[in-house]
Amino acid sequence: MRYRESGVDIDRANEATRRIRQAVRRTWNDRVLSDVGSFGGLFRLPEGLRDPVLVSSTDGVGTKLLVASRARRFDTVGEDLVNHCINDILVQGARPLFFLDYLAAARLEPDRVADVVGGLARACEAAGCALVGGETAEMPGVYHGDDFDLAGTIVGVVERDAIVDGTRVEPGDVVLALPSNGLHTNGYSLVRRIVFDVAGLDVDDPLGDLGVTVADELLRPHRGYLHAVDALRACVDVRAMAHVTGGGVVENLPRVLPAGCGARIEEGTWDVPAIFRWLERTGGVERDEMYRVFNMGLGMLVVIAAADADRVPRRAGDLPLRRVGRIVEGEGVEIVPTPSTDEA
Amino acid sequence: MRYRESGVDIDRANEATRRIRQAVRRTWNDRVLSDVGSFGGLFRLPEGLRDPVLVSSTDGVGTKLLVASRARRFDTVGEDLVNHCINDILVQGARPLFFLDYLAAARLEPDRVADVVGGLARACEAAGCALVGGETAEMPGVYHGDDFDLAGTIVGVVERDAIVDGTRVEPGDVVLALPSNGLHTNGYSLVRRIVFDVAGLDVDDPLGDLGVTVADELLRPHRGYLHAVDALRACVDVRAMAHVTGGGVVENLPRVLPAGCGARIEEGTWDVPAIFRWLERTGGVERDEMYRVFNMGLGMLVVIAAADADRVPRRAGDLPLRRVGRIVEGEGVEIVPTPSTDEA
Repeated sequence: MRYRESGVDIDRANEATRRIRQAVRRTWNDRVLSDVGSFGGLFRLPEGLRDPVLVSSTDGVGTKLLVASRARRFDTVGEDLVNHCINDILVQGARPLFFLDYLAAARLEPDRVADVVGGLARACEAAGCALVGGETAEMPGVYHGDDFDLAGTIVGVVERDAIVDGTRVEPGDVVLALPSNGLHTNGYSLVRRIVFDVAGLDVDDPLGDLGVTVADELLRPHRGYLHAVDALRACVDVRAMAHVTGGGVVENLPRVLPAGCGARIEEGTWDVPAIFRWLERTGGVERDEMYRVFNMGLGMLVVIAAADADRVPRRAGDLPLRRVGRIVEGEGVEIVPTPSTDEA
Repeated sequence: MRYRESGVDIDRANEATRRIRQAVRRTWNDRVLSDVGSFGGLFRLPEGLRDPVLVSSTDGVGTKLLVASRARRFDTVGEDLVNHCINDILVQGARPLFFLDYLAAARLEPDRVADVVGGLARACEAAGCALVGGETAEMPGVYHGDDFDLAGTIVGVVERDAIVDGTRVEPGDVVLALPSNGLHTNGYSLVRRIVFDVAGLDVDDPLGDLGVTVADELLRPHRGYLHAVDALRACVDVRAMAHVTGGGVVENLPRVLPAGCGARIEEGTWDVPAIFRWLERTGGVERDEMYRVFNMGLGMLVVIAAADADRVPRRAGDLPLRRVGRIVEGEGVEIVPTPSTDEA
């Protein structure tokens, strides 16, 4: 018996590695000291740091992957993953240094691996982040058919005295929002249920009257906020940031608020992307559940002192900035409804 | 419709997180600045490093997970993962700093999450490595039944001038081996095929005449070489190391040898664990295929100068050291058969 007969093909895995080598190398800078295929990725820490704190985060793409499989479009999920991870360390003031990925499937088709890792590499390159390692695993029996999983880990750095940790937040502070471009990577089990089961749509169908196909809307890559947050922090002192992922605004904003502080977020102060209204209507989802599952258009929240509010620019990098609420005494997040937005 | 009806339960996920908090916190030292549930893990770099190079690696456990599911034993796979990752950065001379895990399943049972993460935490604690972050994802539709996946990322550090990279290796150098304790985490698709399909055994059956059950042999945790390598490096200058994982000795040793250098490994110079002979015989697997899939008892290879050979201790930490071969001019690894071992 040979290993290949059990469903695992080392030669196929090696061919996949060969195919991604160039894309991976394009993400490298002079701090990367290892080559593709070494046991560990070697990354020389930038010089001149006084008291460096490494900030790291691991994330996955969730069942957005099933939409990618169904649409046979594998070059966008890497961007989802890298941007999600970068946003997660950005909220503590860190800048990305390097990234590692984990890709597992029943069978590693070299073409598909090249598409996925090509997307990862593109997003890393755009953020100046080196893709220094990864694991591609053939796991027949765990994965079936075209299903696969993709996860990744980012490591960044921040000076200890520049960590953004929310401790200075106080009632009266202002909550700003950078807009999401849609679903990002959260709530896809509910999304798939509503789109494919309730509405009976397939990936190439138009999505209601939104003017896009299901695949284009559902696979739009998770937005990265690195450049926008850089631009904003150049103008104003930031007291806290929250990346709005699973759990929505109501679970993510409290993660960075000190005890005794809650937030009031006012509907009508930002644009809710049409996909959320369509899902709410089509799926018969309660408004409070929508806020607990989806970002609702609020991709990244930024808390600043009230006294700094007039120094906030209208745009940060390529993105508009909106003032969406206030920090208040108490706890948790209250969404204040505005009747007019219900008609939107 | 509620999110829960689509198979994802945020409350259950929060309960799982609550359950693992204590185990995770036990791995922490005074360098960890973040708390459980923060967006990124914060780890303050040790002081006094001159030119620190971060060494990182991502790995999975492979289909050894399917054996764990079948045996309903979830507390050992975390140790597999952490030790595998630590061994991978150890070969470049790095010491572990922190670890992040990724755990995905159709449904996150809090008990099972606590078992898996408890195992991770135990192995991290033993290696002085902080478990600073992770992601647990419910992905119905990607995973089915009790199947799950587990991956992790380690980050360690080495001084730039202390990186072990194999560049000083030359013909005549001696190859030492630290013993594996069995299969580690590689070749499990072939192992499962032979054990469950060819031999028709189940997890609680005795494994041939080996004196252990299938589950005990197949779930023995991947050995970690941190303390043994520390002890060895205190005695002798190490020129290269290779962690013997997927691809076996024949693919892993060449990864750390310079151009023009190959190796001759002599059978009979180390003990081959009985499980490998049983698999070879029961599965009718060719000897060269065995060496390409399994570690065959050679868990970690260490290359030293011939002149240093008499300074090598008989043991490194808790483990015996064996002299198993030589570096030669050429390329690749030649396994030199010793007729007597074929009868063993």
